Amino acid sequence: MSRFVFFLFLLFDFRATGQDHDSVFIRKIADEVLLNSQAYRNLEVLCKTVGARLAGSPGMYKAEQWGVNTLKAMGADKVYLQPCSVPRWVRGGKDEAGITYQGRTGKQVKNTLDVLALGNSLGNGKNGVRAPVILINNFNELEQEKDKVKGKIVFYNYPFDPRYVQQGTAYGESGVYRRSGPSRAAKYGALAVFTRSLSSSSDNNPHTGSTSYDTTLPKIPCAALGLKDADMLARLLKEGKRVEGYLKTMAHFLPDTVGHNVIGELAGSEFPEEYITVGAHLDSWDVAEGAHDDGAGCVQSIEVLRALKAIGYRPKRTIRVVLFANEENGLRGANKYAEDAQSKNEKHLFALESDNGGFQPRAFELGMTPVQMNKVRHWLPLFLPYGVYEFIEGGGGADVSPLGKVMKTAIGELRPDSQRYFDLHHARNDVLENVQRRELELGALNMAALVYLVDKYGL
Amino acid sequence: MSRFVFFLFLLFDFRATGQDHDSVFIRKIADEVLLNSQAYRNLEVLCKTVGARLAGSPGMYKAEQWGVNTLKAMGADKVYLQPCSVPRWVRGGKDEAGITYQGRTGKQVKNTLDVLALGNSLGNGKNGVRAPVILINNFNELEQEKDKVKGKIVFYNYPFDPRYVQQGTAYGESGVYRRSGPSRAAKYGALAVFTRSLSSSSDNNPHTGSTSYDTTLPKIPCAALGLKDADMLARLLKEGKRVEGYLKTMAHFLPDTVGHNVIGELAGSEFPEEYITVGAHLDSWDVAEGAHDDGAGCVQSIEVLRALKAIGYRPKRTIRVVLFANEENGLRGANKYAEDAQSKNEKHLFALESDNGGFQPRAFELGMTPVQMNKVRHWLPLFLPYGVYEFIEGGGGADVSPLGKVMKTAIGELRPDSQRYFDLHHARNDVLENVQRRELELGALNMAALVYLVDKYGL
Repeated sequence: MSRFVFFLFLLFDFRATGQDHDSVFIRKIADEVLLNSQAYRNLEVLCKTVGARLAGSPGMYKAEQWGVNTLKAMGADKVYLQPCSVPRWVRGGKDEAGITYQGRTGKQVKNTLDVLALGNSLGNGKNGVRAPVILINNFNELEQEKDKVKGKIVFYNYPFDPRYVQQGTAYGESGVYRRSGPSRAAKYGALAVFTRSLSSSSDNNPHTGSTSYDTTLPKIPCAALGLKDADMLARLLKEGKRVEGYLKTMAHFLPDTVGHNVIGELAGSEFPEEYITVGAHLDSWDVAEGAHDDGAGCVQSIEVLRALKAIGYRPKRTIRVVLFANEENGLRGANKYAEDAQSKNEKHLFALESDNGGFQPRAFELGMTPVQMNKVRHWLPLFLPYGVYEFIEGGGGADVSPLGKVMKTAIGELRPDSQRYFDLHHARNDVLENVQRRELELGALNMAALVYLVDKYGL
Repeated sequence: MSRFVFFLFLLFDFRATGQDHDSVFIRKIADEVLLNSQAYRNLEVLCKTVGARLAGSPGMYKAEQWGVNTLKAMGADKVYLQPCSVPRWVRGGKDEAGITYQGRTGKQVKNTLDVLALGNSLGNGKNGVRAPVILINNFNELEQEKDKVKGKIVFYNYPFDPRYVQQGTAYGESGVYRRSGPSRAAKYGALAVFTRSLSSSSDNNPHTGSTSYDTTLPKIPCAALGLKDADMLARLLKEGKRVEGYLKTMAHFLPDTVGHNVIGELAGSEFPEEYITVGAHLDSWDVAEGAHDDGAGCVQSIEVLRALKAIGYRPKRTIRVVLFANEENGLRGANKYAEDAQSKNEKHLFALESDNGGFQPRAFELGMTPVQMNKVRHWLPLFLPYGVYEFIEGGGGADVSPLGKVMKTAIGELRPDSQRYFDLHHARNDVLENVQRRELELGALNMAALVYLVDKYGL
């Protein structure tokens, strides 16, 4: 058996399943998106007229209105809001941090640090906390040094491992220090925590993101440090310098409020009660425009609907574009969507998400049965001309995973190139200017192609 | 026959050919590059201490010195210069252009245009040229309108076709207007030419690049327009407005001078007289740092040598890193390299180039015999973990093609993502800040892997 035989097999396959017709149709989708996409323009409006839009903030409500207006303008048959309770975490003012240490000349040196309090963390009032800083490179070291932690500021300096080609793997590995690091330090009496930002960028932007307290332990303040500041602080501590740290954050929670999933539908012609969801989260961190995270996913999802409608495609199933509320610090929109689907006993065929930035698409990650996976893999040749060359087994994205769990729905997410995402993820530089229009569009057209195939052939 | 059988086949294949060992070795190359790469740092020095380096300019000599120093510092056994005559085109001052037309209120409106004279074009002295502008959308239209061209400034507005997923295809299609448009317009009596920049970006940066005059026709001045200016001018002309154009460029040639290919070698242990070339061009346009075009390729080629040496690899063949002179407006370095190889009857096994920007790698384009191509395709599974998923048959890059022609050497070039390249190609924004460190490194490590395999197994 030769490689050549395999290619013949593919070719035969292609004709036998009508993929030739599908390749023509997907080319039509591609032309529509590449010639007439509104994705970048919609993102511009979201970023520049709404901007930051954390759950519960005034920006959230403006963003919901943007979502309703945009879905209507892009041709949804029906647009509605699905209310859900959302947390309301506020930064409460500018985060401040600094260090003091003895310089080479013997004089005390004071440096300010560029920090962002972690999402869902609690501040410590106007006086902040002052304490010696202890360098902790990883949790093993924390356990070894646990007797030295009391009364100190713990500085977690766990870096992104550069050897991972997929930056998401590094994020997964180091993310635990942001999420559970503060409480693990509090357990041994730490007064506050600095975490190295979850990034491998070369600038000094701190990257926020949510943390989670163990409610049985003191809820100590914690903030992410920019990478240059983290390197500098680590160097001082490795040199054996006594470094006095300072952290003041005013972060706190206001009472929960009501947010909404914004939903737009393109009604199914044969099975209107069967749903294909395509979505992204509408909220963003408070410090940026959320252009890649996840404005890009929102406008791509809307573009799927617009493009399919613009070329006159009448879906068999109802295609639902869902702009989820509160992914960043609660996932309450996604949970609400799954609960509602369950309570109404809706039939959900597939749910696709885009929440890895609007970069050049390379793959889809899919969470489905092996039989479904085989069926989808069969479609791969249709995607190769548009940059997607792999279907990966995996979990799907955060916002579609509750549906996957509760309803056993097949789920998936777009996997674009990962190199640039963590340069701006949860940081101030996640702005429109860092989105490349055509990469955004190529993501949207691949998503539209997958939605089309699932709608046409089922799963 | 099922897909599963195919995967088994791949697996079998893998072991039978020792690819398992190779995958371990390539992981070693990858770790070395991702952990210790000097590519970005070297590029920083080139961009920020040398900057622009067009053939014959003072920057060219500084760049050559940078090349020599860097190759030595990165571990080349032997570094030398290969002299070649190079042209010396100079811009001669700031290019100026503008338009005048009757505005809505009846008043004359004057707009300046952001332009760059095309490389190798000739200016028209201090007074410039003033003439009515005629919109020509393509060469067919030029032929139809040829009687109206005399005494005018021809404005070629042929756009990048957005439907091409690979931006290089659009560049290939529209590039002819830059290269031969001026002479074709001169044939019908045009006094000057504006060309739409070869880009699909959304800013207004003009993109220069070389043009070529038909020596039997008047050598009229010509300049590229930024895309926003081009759109504005096209709109005015489509509305039927009479638009008076102005173009002043002082571009001219100084006498040819001597430039150099900068060559660094890692000596072969078994077949030292057999060469594998890995290279890129050292020159850049005069208006930018040439960070992607082609500083990226230079530092990637040097990184191949550095990384292989750093992990203790002793190549069988001699690996030659060549930083070619004068690709942009002459290709004289590449021609000289091929001529020398021929006159010395050198044995060249393979020549690899990187000249498509330091973006995320996706493929190699290879120009070789079908038998060689089959052999290389066999190695594809080794590249998948690092982002390269395709070997494409094609021509190889500009600087290795003379070797391919003259010596029938197998040639190839790295094919990274093409979406961002033409946003900055030949424009002022081709600067270090638009290079993402890890994308640059991933390109280098894939190149090193290919060089290793060719060295080990031959072609």
